Amino acid sequence: MKLATLRSDGPDGRLVVVSRDDLRWLPADPAARTLQEALNNWNSVLGKLQQLSEAVETGQGEALDAGLLAAPLPRAWQWLDGSAFPTHGALMQKAFNLPPIETEAPLMYQGMSHQFLGPHDDVPTPSEADGIDFEGEFGVITDAVPMGVSVKDAADHIKLIVLINDWSLRVIAPVEMKTGFGWVRAKPACSVAPFAVTPEELGSAWRYSRVCLDLRIDWNGKRFGAANGSAMAFGFDELVAHAAYSRSLPAGTIIGSGTVSNENCREVGSSCIAERRGIEIIDLGAPKTGFMRFGDRVRMEAEPVAGCSPFGAIDQRVVSFTT
Amino acid sequence: MKLATLRSDGPDGRLVVVSRDDLRWLPADPAARTLQEALNNWNSVLGKLQQLSEAVETGQGEALDAGLLAAPLPRAWQWLDGSAFPTHGALMQKAFNLPPIETEAPLMYQGMSHQFLGPHDDVPTPSEADGIDFEGEFGVITDAVPMGVSVKDAADHIKLIVLINDWSLRVIAPVEMKTGFGWVRAKPACSVAPFAVTPEELGSAWRYSRVCLDLRIDWNGKRFGAANGSAMAFGFDELVAHAAYSRSLPAGTIIGSGTVSNENCREVGSSCIAERRGIEIIDLGAPKTGFMRFGDRVRMEAEPVAGCSPFGAIDQRVVSFTT
Repeated sequence: MKLATLRSDGPDGRLVVVSRDDLRWLPADPAARTLQEALNNWNSVLGKLQQLSEAVETGQGEALDAGLLAAPLPRAWQWLDGSAFPTHGALMQKAFNLPPIETEAPLMYQGMSHQFLGPHDDVPTPSEADGIDFEGEFGVITDAVPMGVSVKDAADHIKLIVLINDWSLRVIAPVEMKTGFGWVRAKPACSVAPFAVTPEELGSAWRYSRVCLDLRIDWNGKRFGAANGSAMAFGFDELVAHAAYSRSLPAGTIIGSGTVSNENCREVGSSCIAERRGIEIIDLGAPKTGFMRFGDRVRMEAEPVAGCSPFGAIDQRVVSFTT
Repeated sequence: MKLATLRSDGPDGRLVVVSRDDLRWLPADPAARTLQEALNNWNSVLGKLQQLSEAVETGQGEALDAGLLAAPLPRAWQWLDGSAFPTHGALMQKAFNLPPIETEAPLMYQGMSHQFLGPHDDVPTPSEADGIDFEGEFGVITDAVPMGVSVKDAADHIKLIVLINDWSLRVIAPVEMKTGFGWVRAKPACSVAPFAVTPEELGSAWRYSRVCLDLRIDWNGKRFGAANGSAMAFGFDELVAHAAYSRSLPAGTIIGSGTVSNENCREVGSSCIAERRGIEIIDLGAPKTGFMRFGDRVRMEAEPVAGCSPFGAIDQRVVSFTT
């Protein structure tokens, strides 16, 4: 099942059920007006949503205008981002001569969740001098999760899967990281691809609570990376359980994988500029790729599943926030 | 003006206007049903709220039962906590032999905001072995703040002031801090004192965007600290502007001061156990004060302003989350 949110007067938009080929939609109002409302009552609305999904597959519904879509959850009560791809961390440590991170637990920070940009929104940032970078990752959305949930039970709370661009300002990020407090100024609002899908929509590409798909990223129309999401050191079930150690998670919690990264990154490319620069430092002694400029575009889309794009595409432009 | 939130069926409770002496309340419904709604429309509802405040001061309204109060904002779209008292940071570095934090910017992390415990709620935590600690601090609540706001303009967005217990798990905190990612498992839900007050309610105790009041903390009925909120290295106006560098802040953003701490902490005491243990390490070579046990109580209340308790008191008990 594929869900999306149409922009509307309200801050949470209007939930719609989308056909697998992205061509048509039906309003989800009979089940829930917004995705947050659906997640608040997931078990009781799921049947109705599935009926709508079957109806839209049979040709019912209106033609979809991708330009009208917001992020599936335009705002959420909680966004916790992991860093579950060990290749990325190891590369960054080697390139920037950082001390190894001494923990066997998953890495995770809490990010801003009151605004998620839509897939075609302009991305306002303060200055090119901050080192504007994209960060392609997969994420999951949960229903309400009790404090202390086990890894096994956590898997059942993963209701939807999304594709996220976790925008980062790379000049500020290491300064904030060194404080130990995580990132605030280095992390503007994330962007999210238009479709949130249930795990079964990914078929066998959803394995071990991981999204085993290539994440194709183009920067200004040129392929930048196509790393696969399977290489997480911790699955999303483990990330959910980690997050819920001392807190309950509200319905609509989004948990991110961190930058998708593979061991053969020199062949498949990277999911953020910082990683490519790290590779350049290791291989060439200095970075040669610059960060993004105002007006630059980035496109992110997962490889197709059964001929269809599961999450649809993020395709957007970085702009100065003053314009 | 003094505002509070009565528990109700909804997750955001019911906004009420409270008399300065905490004895009576009037429903705020003519202006806004919830504090979030009031903050969303602050400039247009302020006049009505002030009329209600004047009415409750003249003896109108019902008797207040403090046991029915939730946190003023039972949930918020954003909680950003600073660490603006330099004495606290310097002490912790000296005691635990930590490297100095290399930044001239305010320290700030993003914390969980989907749940704030009420002033008399039990505080569920996973294990006494995690080093359960309170952390007394002041905070402000803003209306909507545009990205890139100046420090001068930021001051005008501070609409309410609150008293917060930022619960911390001290065995986990340094491990998470060393990752650079900030705190997730080390920071369960915060608690908030019952009353959110407008800055003028504090009179001259609101100076330079700081709460110049002693924060009196009792642990199991015994005075633990009474440090003054004036000693912030950055005012709340600077913290708001810092937070809004690369993001707009939603109405209802809560920004914390960090643990209130004074240079003469050996006389006035501390606002968290970790700081006292740090002093013991420096002065005695080892900590002698343990962390909290299940069943322990902590009480926090600011010194009176014109004979009244501005924020009311937090008075609550730590319990095992499994009970």
